[in-house]
Amino acid sequence: MVDFLPLIVKEKIKDAIEVPLNKGEIPHFDILQRALGNVEYDPKTKTLKILTKTQQRSMNSMSEVRAFFQTVHMASLIYQNMKEKSYATIRDLYYNGKYTISGKTKSWDEQGESDQFIRDLEVILNKSREEMSVVADTKGKISGNISLISAGDTIDARKMGNLGTPLPAIVDDLEFKDVTADYVLVIEKAAIFEKLNFLRWWKDHNCILATGKGQPDRATRRFLRRMSDEYHLPIYVVTDSDPYGFYIYSTYKIGSISLSYEVERLACPQIQFLGVSTSDIYNYKLPKDTIIEAEETDIKRAQELKKYPWFQSKEWQKELDLFLQKKEKVEIEAFSKFGLKYLAEQYLPSKIQSGQFLE
Amino acid sequence: MVDFLPLIVKEKIKDAIEVPLNKGEIPHFDILQRALGNVEYDPKTKTLKILTKTQQRSMNSMSEVRAFFQTVHMASLIYQNMKEKSYATIRDLYYNGKYTISGKTKSWDEQGESDQFIRDLEVILNKSREEMSVVADTKGKISGNISLISAGDTIDARKMGNLGTPLPAIVDDLEFKDVTADYVLVIEKAAIFEKLNFLRWWKDHNCILATGKGQPDRATRRFLRRMSDEYHLPIYVVTDSDPYGFYIYSTYKIGSISLSYEVERLACPQIQFLGVSTSDIYNYKLPKDTIIEAEETDIKRAQELKKYPWFQSKEWQKELDLFLQKKEKVEIEAFSKFGLKYLAEQYLPSKIQSGQFLE
Repeated sequence: MVDFLPLIVKEKIKDAIEVPLNKGEIPHFDILQRALGNVEYDPKTKTLKILTKTQQRSMNSMSEVRAFFQTVHMASLIYQNMKEKSYATIRDLYYNGKYTISGKTKSWDEQGESDQFIRDLEVILNKSREEMSVVADTKGKISGNISLISAGDTIDARKMGNLGTPLPAIVDDLEFKDVTADYVLVIEKAAIFEKLNFLRWWKDHNCILATGKGQPDRATRRFLRRMSDEYHLPIYVVTDSDPYGFYIYSTYKIGSISLSYEVERLACPQIQFLGVSTSDIYNYKLPKDTIIEAEETDIKRAQELKKYPWFQSKEWQKELDLFLQKKEKVEIEAFSKFGLKYLAEQYLPSKIQSGQFLE
Repeated sequence: MVDFLPLIVKEKIKDAIEVPLNKGEIPHFDILQRALGNVEYDPKTKTLKILTKTQQRSMNSMSEVRAFFQTVHMASLIYQNMKEKSYATIRDLYYNGKYTISGKTKSWDEQGESDQFIRDLEVILNKSREEMSVVADTKGKISGNISLISAGDTIDARKMGNLGTPLPAIVDDLEFKDVTADYVLVIEKAAIFEKLNFLRWWKDHNCILATGKGQPDRATRRFLRRMSDEYHLPIYVVTDSDPYGFYIYSTYKIGSISLSYEVERLACPQIQFLGVSTSDIYNYKLPKDTIIEAEETDIKRAQELKKYPWFQSKEWQKELDLFLQKKEKVEIEAFSKFGLKYLAEQYLPSKIQSGQFLE
């Protein structure tokens, strides 16, 4: 992949500069817009979808000349990164490309600025940053009945003791084998993932455990998408019972606007919400002193979720209505009130067995 | 370990209740104080040391009765956790032990409160929370020339592809083998660790790479301490060139006041500071546009560091004076200005070869 990509970068720069010049036009990039107005929910794929509106970045005004130059500049840095077979972080690219002439910044002042051009180039080249050897810290972790092949090494996630198996920054470079799991269980909170792994929960329940540690990173989402596409594994998400947890679930499932151009790689419409739902609070009779009063921001968020096209199922509407009526939330750990193993031995198995997931 | 620990809990509770009662005394715990006044720097061990001042928590006043009860309550939860062979998070223990009678909280209101009793019990029992099967999310990661044995599985950190090897919550349960590294290189920033691992830097330089992702957690520190104690490996730390980076180095090396009772397990006085030092900024002639002006908090912190007993070497005093004179800092990634591989191929090898570390 790394070998032919520099050519794509070269080609695209040619398209933006040489081709227009030869036609007597002003050099320009056409960049798909990734804003609210150019993204919609596609009920067929059940994910967000980026539409076709493009934005031209041309050299025809002084203000745009700088952005045009910055785009080309970042493209050349990425080209260099791939040619050298190096792995740059986004902060490396910021520093690598920063320069000043007689005390005046000519490229970018802040990393926020240079990052934007990395996202632009992902859209222009239709390649993810991972494919361009741009690496990031990762936070996703899995354990369970699967083996991963990474750079020639086979890592059996069943044989990692109490360590768990971290996901690498570039999940597309992984191959999988010996996937004998029945499903993937995604736990929002890393400490609970660790606890379940200590108990070898995945072994007793023949599954793969995963965590994205809160709002998931790209690697975790890409991994789940591949599990769904390549192995057709059901994927269940467990979050705190609050609108922020429901929102994390929706990021996994339908994607996010800022990464709308990546939806096809990252969103995983088959994902189902296992819990903790608002009605679980009352069905499982969680005691009063584990229940937390909702805050204004929770209520606002629930009202927003209620309007999203992907929360329109009867079941979700009922849940959100119940939340808005009760104004109560709980954390996953609230089940520890019933005993330190209740979550692992009662709640999770009973929810999975019942098959009553929210979609 | 788990098998005899519940007995220790029982014994200590007996010491606090039965023993005093039999002598006609009021039940009480004697708890080592872990505050500034009971911690000092020990120039012999080159770490912080907790002194002998204890604080009595007895049943002789109404205000103390509650704390006494809370201590016993937490002890019984931890006892239960170990008996059940479960693994509790600190949040689990908070919920598990929370209860109210007629609407009034009888145990604790907030997790900050229950956490305090976990720390108290670590001191009372002279056991770490890890030894009491209390698990936490971990953030430390390593790669390189070492194998880890965890719960019967052997994990070769040389054969983890691009994944790296995560450290488990309970590092004391690990065994090590095939440690063929010459030293451990600790990188403050996780993304740089990932990049160096992608390049298999540890292979070319026969070492172990580690990262604590900023301020390190207990597992990362315990791992380094064991590398130093058991394999006598030199350990070098690389942080951003700013007083916060120097402070992170000092946490690794001499411990911290809040965990002063854990210094013997966590601090690693043999650790040396590789860089990025303030003088590196000028010795390596980092260009002006990679240099960041120090903020008021940086300057204040440097002034504090200058007074700490463990920053009294001539070399550190010179560095801190230079910082206070220049008021400039850089990030590790600033070296990318010289090329995306400069850090890996020039800066780190040249610093290690020169052997000029700060102590």
